[in-house]
Amino acid sequence: MDHKEKGQEITTRMFGDILDDKRPAFKEMIAITSDYLFGEIWSREGLALRDRSLITVAILVATGKEKQLKTHLGGALSNGVTPDEMKEIMIHAAHYSGWPSAMNGLNVLQELIEEQGLEVSGES
Amino acid sequence: MDHKEKGQEITTRMFGDILDDKRPAFKEMIAITSDYLFGEIWSREGLALRDRSLITVAILVATGKEKQLKTHLGGALSNGVTPDEMKEIMIHAAHYSGWPSAMNGLNVLQELIEEQGLEVSGES
Amino acid sequence: MDHKEKGQEITTRMFGDILDDKRPAFKEMIAITSDYLFGEIWSREGLALRDRSLITVAILVATGKEKQLKTHLGGALSNGVTPDEMKEIMIHAAHYSGWPSAMNGLNVLQELIEEQGLEVSGES
Amino acid sequence: MDHKEKGQEITTRMFGDILDDKRPAFKEMIAITSDYLFGEIWSREGLALRDRSLITVAILVATGKEKQLKTHLGGALSNGVTPDEMKEIMIHAAHYSGWPSAMNGLNVLQELIEEQGLEVSGES
Amino acid sequence: MDHKEKGQEITTRMFGDILDDKRPAFKEMIAITSDYLFGEIWSREGLALRDRSLITVAILVATGKEKQLKTHLGGALSNGVTPDEMKEIMIHAAHYSGWPSAMNGLNVLQELIEEQGLEVSGES
Amino acid sequence: MDHKEKGQEITTRMFGDILDDKRPAFKEMIAITSDYLFGEIWSREGLALRDRSLITVAILVATGKEKQLKTHLGGALSNGVTPDEMKEIMIHAAHYSGWPSAMNGLNVLQELIEEQGLEVSGES
Repeated sequence: MDHKEKGQEITTRMFGDILDDKRPAFKEMIAITSDYLFGEIWSREGLALRDRSLITVAILVATGKEKQLKTHLGGALSNGVTPDEMKEIMIHAAHYSGWPSAMNGLNVLQELIEEQGLEVSGES
Repeated sequence: MDHKEKGQEITTRMFGDILDDKRPAFKEMIAITSDYLFGEIWSREGLALRDRSLITVAILVATGKEKQLKTHLGGALSNGVTPDEMKEIMIHAAHYSGWPSAMNGLNVLQELIEEQGLEVSGES
Repeated sequence: MDHKEKGQEITTRMFGDILDDKRPAFKEMIAITSDYLFGEIWSREGLALRDRSLITVAILVATGKEKQLKTHLGGALSNGVTPDEMKEIMIHAAHYSGWPSAMNGLNVLQELIEEQGLEVSGES
Repeated sequence: MDHKEKGQEITTRMFGDILDDKRPAFKEMIAITSDYLFGEIWSREGLALRDRSLITVAILVATGKEKQLKTHLGGALSNGVTPDEMKEIMIHAAHYSGWPSAMNGLNVLQELIEEQGLEVSGES
Repeated sequence: MDHKEKGQEITTRMFGDILDDKRPAFKEMIAITSDYLFGEIWSREGLALRDRSLITVAILVATGKEKQLKTHLGGALSNGVTPDEMKEIMIHAAHYSGWPSAMNGLNVLQELIEEQGLEVSGES
Repeated sequence: MDHKEKGQEITTRMFGDILDDKRPAFKEMIAITSDYLFGEIWSREGLALRDRSLITVAILVATGKEKQLKTHLGGALSNGVTPDEMKEIMIHAAHYSGWPSAMNGLNVLQELIEEQGLEVSGES
């Protein structure tokens, strides 16, 4: 399986039909994202996919990228991170990138929970 | 074991004698860090210590906190993250928080490798 | 009055019924925020509440946390910061965290002014 | 032509009737922006207007200021930056400030393209 | 007193001989800083100098600008902020911009304390 | 010329012998940087090299990446950006990412000026 195929396989498994985006401004960037970012970087062997999801989610929370966080929380779910662990990531992150980043992260998580009918325990 | 003791136990295991800092400006903040941040947050059950190290390291790389990254790469080592995985975190992070953040992260990792006589493989 | 009660007292006075949030993802974080962040940190004696509001607002403007800025501008009002001073904070911040952060801050302030029927002078 | 007039001339040419904003919270900041930021800084001779647009757009993408990015992509168009170059700026920026900042930048660009009926080539 | 003189007066009182910087790359920026930033912005009446110092320090801690933080902690001292209040700002900021930003802020404060022979209480 | 060769050609022309870095932690990242970032992204046709240098420098100033700024100011010089234009970029950036980012940028520029015996005019 070459990079192109690997990229398609991972992105589809993690995010569904995200590669179908046909908006002109995005066309090349989506190709680069699939072929290179997922085909060559996410598919490297040195780090488990669940670990890659954890660090991606952590960076997105810390840098306030909420749109991408929504997408990657979905991907993290595919890679084995539970909703309770996601809630815990936000609580942990509050102390390293500030309370507001965690509150915004929890807001995105709450949306995901509602949309996908997930559950989080009251206490972890 | 109460929060105070848990905090001391975790910080000592992860970072050695970091609580011995006697500089006046730091006194209260170090107490809060040990008792609360490590005693009450890092010791929560919802997320494994290795996972907490991964997300902490990721946030520190993404937000350019190099001094704390040095400390937490050491802590991550205690929590089971290998130097090769650390290198891979930096390569992954390059794509979510920018190349410069990864280069600075690798610089800190290289220092840790040299100081502790660690090894990274040429290819992961 | 213990930390729990202090936290409830301060958060209620500054923000109204913000603790009533019942969304599952937020439950624990709201408890930590009330008991610890407001009960143990905001209630420390070393800095006046008006000063705490000033620095909180400044950080939220500088780091672009608009949702929290809205909440904390309301809290700052309770702690004695006037709408004209808030406007001035944004103008000042423009030079330390960039024009766009100030413009977004003014936007949030304008919303608060309209919602609460506040006034700002044309010139301070 | 004094600073005040220069500022009005540049802002009007780049952004249209943006100075007509009459919201109370913005009144003074808009005067400072027109008279000083555009009248004294953007009108300095040491750097071409197209270069100033390039670096402004780059900073806005990197720091996630999407509202201002929308305005300044419009201004960049007036200063001779083409939609294809804008798309390329986002692809380039992905590597220095992270993929999410580029994706958000492309989103803003796509809006501009649709609103103004612009075209981007499939490949640059 | 015109803007130029006001700027010189404030910068000299807050920072000493900082305007004497003769490095070629800085010449114009220092003139703009003195005449405009201090002569026209810091000297606006809408916000007290102590308040301006508080928000400036808060922004510098939150955005990790340690060199400028050192300078502005000195300026804040001139404007009536005590070393204990500075310590408290860092502890407060830890929760809004993350622990690492506060630790780096305390480090800068500790340097100032040592250089100027200041004191902070063990507990505030 | 394939991507690998293109990458080596551009990096060598812009930065000299930067690819010779032999530190273990950097080995793979440097290969990715040369082959992909320079061989595939910087060598895309949609944006002139001078434009790419302008936006790279702007991002590095705005995000406070001083080590990389030093390297890329050198590269910008190779791509036709003059020291006076660099000074002007910093003055312009002050207003979009804050004064401290510009001051730190000027500091790096001043170092480059001194090391390479460059000149900047007193006024641009």
